Amino acid sequence: MPIVRIEMFEGRTHAQKQELARAITEVVVNIAQTTPEATIVVFQDVSRDNWATGGKLESDDA
Amino acid sequence: MPIVRIEMFEGRTHAQKQELARAITEVVVNIAQTTPEATIVVFQDVSRDNWATGGKLESDDA
Amino acid sequence: MPIVRIEMFEGRTHAQKQELARAITEVVVNIAQTTPEATIVVFQDVSRDNWATGGKLESDDA
Amino acid sequence: MPIVRIEMFEGRTHAQKQELARAITEVVVNIAQTTPEATIVVFQDVSRDNWATGGKLESDDA
Amino acid sequence: MPIVRIEMFEGRTHAQKQELARAITEVVVNIAQTTPEATIVVFQDVSRDNWATGGKLESDDA
Amino acid sequence: MPIVRIEMFEGRTHAQKQELARAITEVVVNIAQTTPEATIVVFQDVSRDNWATGGKLESDDA
Repeated sequence: MPIVRIEMFEGRTHAQKQELARAITEVVVNIAQTTPEATIVVFQDVSRDNWATGGKLESDDA
Repeated sequence: MPIVRIEMFEGRTHAQKQELARAITEVVVNIAQTTPEATIVVFQDVSRDNWATGGKLESDDA
Repeated sequence: MPIVRIEMFEGRTHAQKQELARAITEVVVNIAQTTPEATIVVFQDVSRDNWATGGKLESDDA
Repeated sequence: MPIVRIEMFEGRTHAQKQELARAITEVVVNIAQTTPEATIVVFQDVSRDNWATGGKLESDDA
Repeated sequence: MPIVRIEMFEGRTHAQKQELARAITEVVVNIAQTTPEATIVVFQDVSRDNWATGGKLESDDA
Repeated sequence: MPIVRIEMFEGRTHAQKQELARAITEVVVNIAQTTPEATIVVFQDVSRDNWATGGKLESDDA
């Protein structure tokens, strides 16, 4: 019953998400000893306007 | 001060969210013994491109 | 595939969580038209030291 | 390595998010004794259709 | 109605959390133009066993 | 700057978390084209008392 949640900048392609979902599920199933059916992966696309490091929005980064 | 967060596939109507907010708040108030005013419900719409079970994106499901 | 997450002050009994899980799942299944098996409820117990409203920790509230 | 996550109604301007990211990072660095580089701030814009208090969606509030 | 959630390594004192809750609420109220009563701050203490950067748990860091 | 969050039942060993952090970071770096240093993995251990599927707490499952 693992739930994996991935926050990334928006812009990843459908193919990248497919591959991430497949590979992360495989890793979790093998290491945490669960089943693929019980493993949920949720992507959260974050815009560069909504993410800051060092007190500075990514969208303002030169 | 319960905060209830509901992740669902996008596509639920305004009327469904109204009804969910009303009914879940009632359940939480009655069972957890709090007040409606202290109960927050937040919906998070997830696209089928952003949700995988069994390592497969929902949007790819036949 | 709804995931419902409930943050509440710690101290709710096992019986209250049983009843909340049962009743919230019923509400979500009926209104969002999904199945009980696809509905996950996760509780997050929060201590009064870790929750503030109005800039004041609950544990400091007279 | 603090991660600060802020859920607010959508509609805040880029300038408000800039200022929030800057000021919150400053507060966290000073009080929690960490570095700006290690401090991440993520904004989550919530529509009034997706937020309820007292069992009532904000978008339905008169 | 902002909800601010802060994930940090466990070990911050009660006094630090008091000060963080107070200062962050003040910043949010001033910049996002809301009220202190509507501003919730939730702390989530994370152990060094549960946090990795660069693929390495913090608790394993020399 | 991906943040990966993994909710699992408590009980996974330190070695399993080490291996999960290492392998998931590798997958994310390769597929999402980011760096290990920018990839954060956070584990959230959930007790069987705090997780329900089908309206039933895991701790009550025969």
